[in-house]
Amino acid sequence: MEFTASQIAALINGTIEGNRDDKINDVSKIEEGKPGTLTFLANPKYTQFIYETKASIVIVNESFKPEKDIAATLIRVKDAYTAFATLLDYYNKIKLDKKGISEKAHISAGCLLGNEIYIGEFAFLGEGVNIGDHSKIYPQVYLGDHVMLGKNTTIYPGVKIYSDVVIGNNCIIHAGVIIGSDGFGFAPQAENNYSKVAQIGNVVIEDDVEIGSNTTIDRATLGSTIIKKGAKIDNLIQIAHNVEIGENTVIAAQTGISGSTRIGKNCMIGGQVGIIGHLTIADEVKIAAQSGVGKNIINKGEIVQGSPAFDISSYRKSYIHFKNLHEIKTKLDNLEKEINKPK
Amino acid sequence: MEFTASQIAALINGTIEGNRDDKINDVSKIEEGKPGTLTFLANPKYTQFIYETKASIVIVNESFKPEKDIAATLIRVKDAYTAFATLLDYYNKIKLDKKGISEKAHISAGCLLGNEIYIGEFAFLGEGVNIGDHSKIYPQVYLGDHVMLGKNTTIYPGVKIYSDVVIGNNCIIHAGVIIGSDGFGFAPQAENNYSKVAQIGNVVIEDDVEIGSNTTIDRATLGSTIIKKGAKIDNLIQIAHNVEIGENTVIAAQTGISGSTRIGKNCMIGGQVGIIGHLTIADEVKIAAQSGVGKNIINKGEIVQGSPAFDISSYRKSYIHFKNLHEIKTKLDNLEKEINKPK
Amino acid sequence: MEFTASQIAALINGTIEGNRDDKINDVSKIEEGKPGTLTFLANPKYTQFIYETKASIVIVNESFKPEKDIAATLIRVKDAYTAFATLLDYYNKIKLDKKGISEKAHISAGCLLGNEIYIGEFAFLGEGVNIGDHSKIYPQVYLGDHVMLGKNTTIYPGVKIYSDVVIGNNCIIHAGVIIGSDGFGFAPQAENNYSKVAQIGNVVIEDDVEIGSNTTIDRATLGSTIIKKGAKIDNLIQIAHNVEIGENTVIAAQTGISGSTRIGKNCMIGGQVGIIGHLTIADEVKIAAQSGVGKNIINKGEIVQGSPAFDISSYRKSYIHFKNLHEIKTKLDNLEKEINKPK
Repeated sequence: MEFTASQIAALINGTIEGNRDDKINDVSKIEEGKPGTLTFLANPKYTQFIYETKASIVIVNESFKPEKDIAATLIRVKDAYTAFATLLDYYNKIKLDKKGISEKAHISAGCLLGNEIYIGEFAFLGEGVNIGDHSKIYPQVYLGDHVMLGKNTTIYPGVKIYSDVVIGNNCIIHAGVIIGSDGFGFAPQAENNYSKVAQIGNVVIEDDVEIGSNTTIDRATLGSTIIKKGAKIDNLIQIAHNVEIGENTVIAAQTGISGSTRIGKNCMIGGQVGIIGHLTIADEVKIAAQSGVGKNIINKGEIVQGSPAFDISSYRKSYIHFKNLHEIKTKLDNLEKEINKPK
Repeated sequence: MEFTASQIAALINGTIEGNRDDKINDVSKIEEGKPGTLTFLANPKYTQFIYETKASIVIVNESFKPEKDIAATLIRVKDAYTAFATLLDYYNKIKLDKKGISEKAHISAGCLLGNEIYIGEFAFLGEGVNIGDHSKIYPQVYLGDHVMLGKNTTIYPGVKIYSDVVIGNNCIIHAGVIIGSDGFGFAPQAENNYSKVAQIGNVVIEDDVEIGSNTTIDRATLGSTIIKKGAKIDNLIQIAHNVEIGENTVIAAQTGISGSTRIGKNCMIGGQVGIIGHLTIADEVKIAAQSGVGKNIINKGEIVQGSPAFDISSYRKSYIHFKNLHEIKTKLDNLEKEINKPK
Repeated sequence: MEFTASQIAALINGTIEGNRDDKINDVSKIEEGKPGTLTFLANPKYTQFIYETKASIVIVNESFKPEKDIAATLIRVKDAYTAFATLLDYYNKIKLDKKGISEKAHISAGCLLGNEIYIGEFAFLGEGVNIGDHSKIYPQVYLGDHVMLGKNTTIYPGVKIYSDVVIGNNCIIHAGVIIGSDGFGFAPQAENNYSKVAQIGNVVIEDDVEIGSNTTIDRATLGSTIIKKGAKIDNLIQIAHNVEIGENTVIAAQTGISGSTRIGKNCMIGGQVGIIGHLTIADEVKIAAQSGVGKNIINKGEIVQGSPAFDISSYRKSYIHFKNLHEIKTKLDNLEKEINKPK
């Protein structure tokens, strides 16, 4: 896709200084700008680069005053960062605007398909699947029987969604995600073996949720595993059966949450965190990366670290002493000698 | 699917109190019971809910004596929990009873297909694949050349099994699992680069094994990576080349086991545990979540925690002191002052 | 596949002692050798087994002098280990020598396909995909629009590569890997919710890179996430947007690297390591398994451990004291009593 300076200026309501017909077909960082690319200057720390950049067009703030000559065409807007982000969104929307239902997809009986949807090649829809308007099912996706998808939701290639899962509007599910697989439930038997506990609940994902690549979300034993509105879940995360994730909670990659734990809203959970089962985590809690949470966190906004985790400033204090444990031990040994020496 | 009270009573050998024709089409927890659902009361802590539940049918113990009126139809059985679990199994068996071989699957030459199997759309079977009776291959599964599957084994959508892997009877492999990919073996070369060591062994999975979503199990360099009978492996677990997992050992999500390590039988390994390579772990060992095991565990039934891991009660004692390190350090400093002060 | 002793001797330039017509169709370890298999003896520790092995053919060093009778046919070569490895490579090359373009693959307009390539069933190639000579695309792979693959690169089943990703020559990408999914970028909004930051960069993977099963590599926000020449990435690893991994760096399973971090060349990173975002890690750095790196590592060759990580020998010293914290605390308490007792 190619755009001219005047097309871009029109999209972001900007004024041009330079050649209206300059063309770009890619974007770049200002410090790495190449001919034929668009970039922006928002952070004053990067001002030096605007005089050297090879980018063809630079979006700048209205208030920007150059101190030297600039080779690039400028587009002045109120807020350069926001304008650039708007353009990227616009570009992505065009690029990702797939439509149509492939004849190579398999659509079982009783499916209800919305308007202007995309269903890619080798996608499989089980019986009675519902897809809302403007949703996109990429190639090689599996939607089990009676899966319900809202409007404007994107399911990237190779996602596997087991039967009866419900997903809301404006969700984005990245490639390789598994939703609705059996929870890890086994009843110990007499001979040290296990019998499987049937997992017949489902998973409910509310609106505006994004889920990263290869994350797994197990179905509930009974009832639902629930991801609430606006939650953002990164890659390779494990969410066990009957877990509930609160609204607008953000979870970084490779974190694992054990069965039946309920996480509040607006929490921020770092990467590689582990949380054991059947806990309650309050709203607005922050958990540092690699922490292991072993008990309820009841205070709103609490911040914890460690494995097991406790108050983050206490953890950090303890950890400084841990790093100095050899000196502490030496001091203790010296004191002991001092005390025990003959007087 | 819809069932009447009399159909359910027949299945679990129960006696009805109420309307034999009450119908249910779903199950619920007693505290969340909705009309048209079946639930059960086994734990006395939940007795209060039976008087309020909106569920249409409740399975109760023969011994249960109501203290107030109950709106729901009751089915009395010897053991309500077991009867309910039996029904869920029955329900799941019907629901998951897929059969038939899709014309949209690709089946290469020389495959041996058992009776009453299911092969879903866009599944790929390489040359000489064997599938036992009653096994199910969901859509988009890949079975490499000469993969052998036993009877009554279920392979969920999108599982990828490389060539020569052998899987027993009554196994369940969840979506996105990768079995038989190359072990991570590289020989250092003169220029700091690496040459690949060919991985030509396979993976053997014995009977009654369940493997969770997106778990990865690498093939052996030579010989076999082995998962023994009855082992239960959760989601997103890494099992490296030539590892051996003992009978009925249970491993929680996101744990990683490095190359050539042998784990005993009846072990319980928590989530996010790491075990280095070439170790031997005794039978019945328990490893706490997030632990890192760096040496052999030779005593049967040992319980460890920490990174590196050691005896769990020692770890917990040390960790309590770790949390108080600031107080310990302060006390030490005060003692030092005390001793050094002029007398 | 079956080979005779004379065929094998010809391949590795060896001399036969025994029956030239002995046949093998598999390989084995010398201590587990079965009839019809090939094995080798390189490590003197295993010499005892050559007198008992049931393997039909054993490759030995020229210098090997038997002390008893050996039942197997011997093939003598300069270096038995290297010769055996060469044979395994040869065997694997024949076994994995897939060719041809399946009619059940979907190839969009504008693709450029090299010579002697393999494209398996149900693979999807978007618009303008380029595939170099001798590359292999296994079944059920997804290559988004404008993906570029070099020569002699293997993409195993079910890999999903988003649009605009560039992959070099001689790469191996294992099953279930996701490359080019959106980075985890969200801008906080007024009502505690988040708006998505468009991720319009790509991923560039240079030559000779191997990536393990179910690993995820996110596309850059702007610019490229880069994996440099010769890097080896194990299973279930998370590589976030705009990360850069240096040449010949090796990363073990389940490690996670946060956004914009740059890792030097020839580094060795253990399993389950976490590295936070926007850091720089020097060349030849080693990071112990399960460590958490929270700041830049500026010294070439530094070795670190811990969460947060610091110098490994200091960590180990501190950890020994941590294990003895109860004794340290007891000693401190005793000293205190000693000092405070009436004199």
